Amino acid sequence: MTSAQIRPGLFITVEGVEGVGKTTNMAFIREWLERAGVELVCTREPGGTPLAEELRALLLANRAEPVDPCAELLMIFAARAQHLSQVIEPALARGAWVLCDRFTDATFAYQGGGRKLPAAVIETLESLVQGGRQPDRTFYLDLDVETGLARARKRGDADRFEREAREFFEAVRQAYWQRVQANPARFTVIDAGVSLVEVQAAIAAGLEDLFAQIKGEGQ
Amino acid sequence: MTSAQIRPGLFITVEGVEGVGKTTNMAFIREWLERAGVELVCTREPGGTPLAEELRALLLANRAEPVDPCAELLMIFAARAQHLSQVIEPALARGAWVLCDRFTDATFAYQGGGRKLPAAVIETLESLVQGGRQPDRTFYLDLDVETGLARARKRGDADRFEREAREFFEAVRQAYWQRVQANPARFTVIDAGVSLVEVQAAIAAGLEDLFAQIKGEGQ
Repeated sequence: MTSAQIRPGLFITVEGVEGVGKTTNMAFIREWLERAGVELVCTREPGGTPLAEELRALLLANRAEPVDPCAELLMIFAARAQHLSQVIEPALARGAWVLCDRFTDATFAYQGGGRKLPAAVIETLESLVQGGRQPDRTFYLDLDVETGLARARKRGDADRFEREAREFFEAVRQAYWQRVQANPARFTVIDAGVSLVEVQAAIAAGLEDLFAQIKGEGQ
Repeated sequence: MTSAQIRPGLFITVEGVEGVGKTTNMAFIREWLERAGVELVCTREPGGTPLAEELRALLLANRAEPVDPCAELLMIFAARAQHLSQVIEPALARGAWVLCDRFTDATFAYQGGGRKLPAAVIETLESLVQGGRQPDRTFYLDLDVETGLARARKRGDADRFEREAREFFEAVRQAYWQRVQANPARFTVIDAGVSLVEVQAAIAAGLEDLFAQIKGEGQ
């Protein structure tokens, strides 16, 4: 796979609700891709640049002031615009791959599904901020909400999102599934409710499939 | 004017480039309206709520990282959504007046004129965040850029906007004039290049005119 460096970079995202194992499996994907010889930029949303990380801190902070859902949405897309312009687009342009912990699917899931903001509004901002940029492959780690929340809550201090009620996360999960159904070629769905070995075997199969697809396209 | 309390509140904004005397003249308008018996909420943009003020700090900070113009625009509208939902709309709904140091005209001037973002993009966000909400009256303090910048620079440490070049502020001023021309009934243009006594006489005349108009409308 040494020719990966001269191809245009691929943009890979990892999605899922709280407690689904994103951190562990991001590390697995990173190691897998680096072993395959890919120059990789690992990043996350919201965040990924100093300014975007400052926006993330504002978004996650527990605060007395109620946060207007539209303000939340605009902060997320502000962070995304900064992240795309400073990190993601330059990396892809020089042929590096980008592995990102959450991207716009999370916005459709959390702000669309969770906060009930209209998908059309999110699509307008998506188009404004991303133009045609979409992930080339998205690993969606799926887990029932109860198990996920139980795992996440063991981690201690819950941020402003983690403090939402179970119904919120049910709506988030449902919105993720709508994204999967609307974009079947882009998504690799991983059942995160099985053992870690099985989860990572499924992720590795997804990565093998992605490499086979690239080869098939003669990129 | 004691009946002002039972009318729907009016929304008054003050606009102008750096060094134009906004702070001094905001205080003058505030005193004038309070003497007239108006319950007044004085606020500013970007800002006006704890979260929106945190966004303001991110926007104004000088930073090594270049700030993507679209990220800047979305942060401003995020702060505005929060400000409208938490402060401006509740105040107007209970019959208070709102006096705001800058609002969306500043976005058309700075991000549109200064940063060259398309007006159509700003209008899309304006519509999303504000619905039909517009100021009832806007005092635009106009001053040639050279005089304004000379005054502003006496104040010391320049923020990220104040460090822009003169051409930026010329474009800002030009965009303000386009706003005035497109909304002649809403704007009261004040020549800020004359003596303070004359400036404040012109502002007072504008406020008298606003009260006469309200009376005429039988509000």
